[in-house]
Amino acid sequence: MAEKNIGITVKKADNISEWYTQVIQKAELADYTKVSGCMVIRPRAYEMWEKVQDYFNKRIKALGVKNAYFPLFIPESLLLKEKEHVEGFSPEVAWVTHAGNSKLNERLAIRPTSETIMYDSYKNWIRSYNDLPLKINQWCNIVRWEFKNPMPFLRGREFLWQEGHSVFATREEAEEEIRTILDIYADVMEKLYAVPVMKGKKSNVEKFAGAVETLSIETILPSGKAIQIATTHFLGQNFSKAFGISYLDRDEKKKHPWQTSWGISTRTLGIMTMIHGDDKGMIVPPRVAPVHGVIVPIRLENDKKAFKEIEAVKEQLNSHEIVIDERTGYTPGFKFNDWEMKGIPVRIEIGPKDIENKSVMLVRRDTGEKKPVKVAKLKEEFKVILDDIQKNLLNRAKESMEKHIVEVSDYASLKKAIKDKKVAKAYFCCEDACEEEIAEETTAKTLNMPFKQPNLDGKKCMHSGKDAKALIYFGRSY
Amino acid sequence: MAEKNIGITVKKADNISEWYTQVIQKAELADYTKVSGCMVIRPRAYEMWEKVQDYFNKRIKALGVKNAYFPLFIPESLLLKEKEHVEGFSPEVAWVTHAGNSKLNERLAIRPTSETIMYDSYKNWIRSYNDLPLKINQWCNIVRWEFKNPMPFLRGREFLWQEGHSVFATREEAEEEIRTILDIYADVMEKLYAVPVMKGKKSNVEKFAGAVETLSIETILPSGKAIQIATTHFLGQNFSKAFGISYLDRDEKKKHPWQTSWGISTRTLGIMTMIHGDDKGMIVPPRVAPVHGVIVPIRLENDKKAFKEIEAVKEQLNSHEIVIDERTGYTPGFKFNDWEMKGIPVRIEIGPKDIENKSVMLVRRDTGEKKPVKVAKLKEEFKVILDDIQKNLLNRAKESMEKHIVEVSDYASLKKAIKDKKVAKAYFCCEDACEEEIAEETTAKTLNMPFKQPNLDGKKCMHSGKDAKALIYFGRSY
Repeated sequence: MAEKNIGITVKKADNISEWYTQVIQKAELADYTKVSGCMVIRPRAYEMWEKVQDYFNKRIKALGVKNAYFPLFIPESLLLKEKEHVEGFSPEVAWVTHAGNSKLNERLAIRPTSETIMYDSYKNWIRSYNDLPLKINQWCNIVRWEFKNPMPFLRGREFLWQEGHSVFATREEAEEEIRTILDIYADVMEKLYAVPVMKGKKSNVEKFAGAVETLSIETILPSGKAIQIATTHFLGQNFSKAFGISYLDRDEKKKHPWQTSWGISTRTLGIMTMIHGDDKGMIVPPRVAPVHGVIVPIRLENDKKAFKEIEAVKEQLNSHEIVIDERTGYTPGFKFNDWEMKGIPVRIEIGPKDIENKSVMLVRRDTGEKKPVKVAKLKEEFKVILDDIQKNLLNRAKESMEKHIVEVSDYASLKKAIKDKKVAKAYFCCEDACEEEIAEETTAKTLNMPFKQPNLDGKKCMHSGKDAKALIYFGRSY
Repeated sequence: MAEKNIGITVKKADNISEWYTQVIQKAELADYTKVSGCMVIRPRAYEMWEKVQDYFNKRIKALGVKNAYFPLFIPESLLLKEKEHVEGFSPEVAWVTHAGNSKLNERLAIRPTSETIMYDSYKNWIRSYNDLPLKINQWCNIVRWEFKNPMPFLRGREFLWQEGHSVFATREEAEEEIRTILDIYADVMEKLYAVPVMKGKKSNVEKFAGAVETLSIETILPSGKAIQIATTHFLGQNFSKAFGISYLDRDEKKKHPWQTSWGISTRTLGIMTMIHGDDKGMIVPPRVAPVHGVIVPIRLENDKKAFKEIEAVKEQLNSHEIVIDERTGYTPGFKFNDWEMKGIPVRIEIGPKDIENKSVMLVRRDTGEKKPVKVAKLKEEFKVILDDIQKNLLNRAKESMEKHIVEVSDYASLKKAIKDKKVAKAYFCCEDACEEEIAEETTAKTLNMPFKQPNLDGKKCMHSGKDAKALIYFGRSY
């Protein structure tokens, strides 16, 4: 069988978007479809998403959050109920107008987020303090009709996410929850995807349409472009007032409860790919890897005894996902490249000499390092190597992220930083007009303001010269 | 606090649709929304669906099936590619025509099933025999714009399901898979939902639009109405030819592969509710129950010592899901009714006497039977009772199903059986015209033909008088 060139044909440093597009397709993470801006999430990526779902479900269920499912469709009249919210979303809503051969009486929005459809039910379910807190999450598809160029996972017209929507009797509980969930999101990124994050609060301009306060985690891609990963919103009583949600408190008074919403999406799969991959292709962090190791037999075709040994090696590693590459008609070299491109954390080479010595050769995907290991020691060595790969990927990504951040003290330096593809950390007055001016001139926007702020006494905004309200990150962002 | 009447106000035997509608809402399984025909799947039902997902994922992953996700939208031109298929689905397709303020160039169908969008990708992924078999499943939402009256779970415009789509090099593998998957569906129903099923093959009239052969599991509701639960389809080469899917075989020849598709949906939640419930409300089979037991403390308010004992009881049962009903302001009687309505398998009553005797009172939801159990023996007794409830529910349902089936040998008896709200088992010529005549006259359709058929020599169709091709079930069906 002819071996076609399966490798990535462009270097990551030379053209990261072309590199990304090739990796996504050649590593079989996603594929384009005939529907513009919509893609297939292929099994190799979806299995990672399932690992994220498992982890996140465990964490939120421990907080008393329950999963449910609300309709895909939102009647136009419902979507219009919270003014800021509808202004934020209506430019990118997809509309259903017909069913079969009939025209619908009212057109239906395909959910761009589910606040409006969910809270219209919450209104009926919440009567007394006994019904609070109410904490519901759903895993679903979301449609936002992007008019910019689509990028698989990072920007598209349909994606998968979870959206949590909680209702509390007190403001304090709601404000606490959005911090707790943000920490879980940070754990998903750092512990599973090995992606470092910047946690903080969004500016007024960048906050969610309809929220009082939005928190986010963000990171910086190797190109220097920032990207928002996930957000949690404190909605105050905005929606409970707009939707007429109220409860009878212990003091027999009717009150509007306090609400939150929060989401993380399949965008994370793209971020991870962008951050860890190299010129050979994808690198999958072990904690989200559907396959941890691939055994490539070398010059052992038709050797039945050797095959028994190979099976025994797999058995040794049965607490991990291991595949044996038994494809015929391909050279070992082709197979090495293929699995490297797909990013499997460890390659396990077994040749006639290894069979003789009762050993295998382990090859790390992240560093390329080779290590001969006795089969008797394989089980523990394999685990050590996986843990080390996970740690190494996070450390490498942290270093890269930090290298992209510069602290600037005047506007000229901010402009230069943005031009140099950096993220700038700067003192800022936090006024909308000032932010919009900066955005216009630099195409950079604010990412977020770290929770731990320095003493701001005497500090001035690097653009307006007014008193600084925060040290904040500015960057070009997806 | 005033205790509103929370009970079901109609007897199941008197008006099963009204009874069902009340149970669904009062047991908090589902709720109506402002979108006609679309409902919320509330946590109490969704948690059961998650148990089904877990079980089914394990079973199909063991067969090598991988999960993935394909777009919600299908361009009209793709939907039109397989003639029979589009004719079957187009009357109930919801169409997206606009996004934001723009009209789309081509209108997009919201998936009524995903054959067409998936196989357009399969065409690109399948090149050689090395790429086969390809087995992909997705869990997703489906929209079919029903114009009949909606019934929560049983008939609606949006539902959740899984759809598996496999591709094989040989016809035999495909034909085997649809039988294997049908067995898994039967296990989901019988082992998890405690719902007995009739397995068999669909008639030509009732098979899936575009399939060569459709297998199904069906059951009979207490009303005597039959309902299709799930189907598996052997698609032959119909779609591989229509979509241009081919592979290079070992003999260097290009061939069209053989395909299957199969699905089970949230309809199962409604079927289970309909079958097991009684005049007090829902009865949840333990294997899908999100909560197995509820502890109701009686006259123990503010008794700190007793509360410690109650916690210890819960700890004893920590391999099950147990909740303690600590709500204030409600009588024990109110709480009993409430949990009975929600169908929790076992109630655990604890009063001052029980604390003294180191015992609890277990009350089974299915039979109402009470049994005092020493705390020391609780762990094992509880498990025995749960297993017995699961078995009892299935047996009861089996008896009810069998009581609804009558074997008929002439057309007059068939008509009488259908009029009497029975399912009729009859010899049948299997010709489309004959089936359509019967359907017109009786409003009954064929359900399926059992795999194990009697010797048909000399047997005649009870309607046409022609040679019988099968013993088949006829019934009014959802």
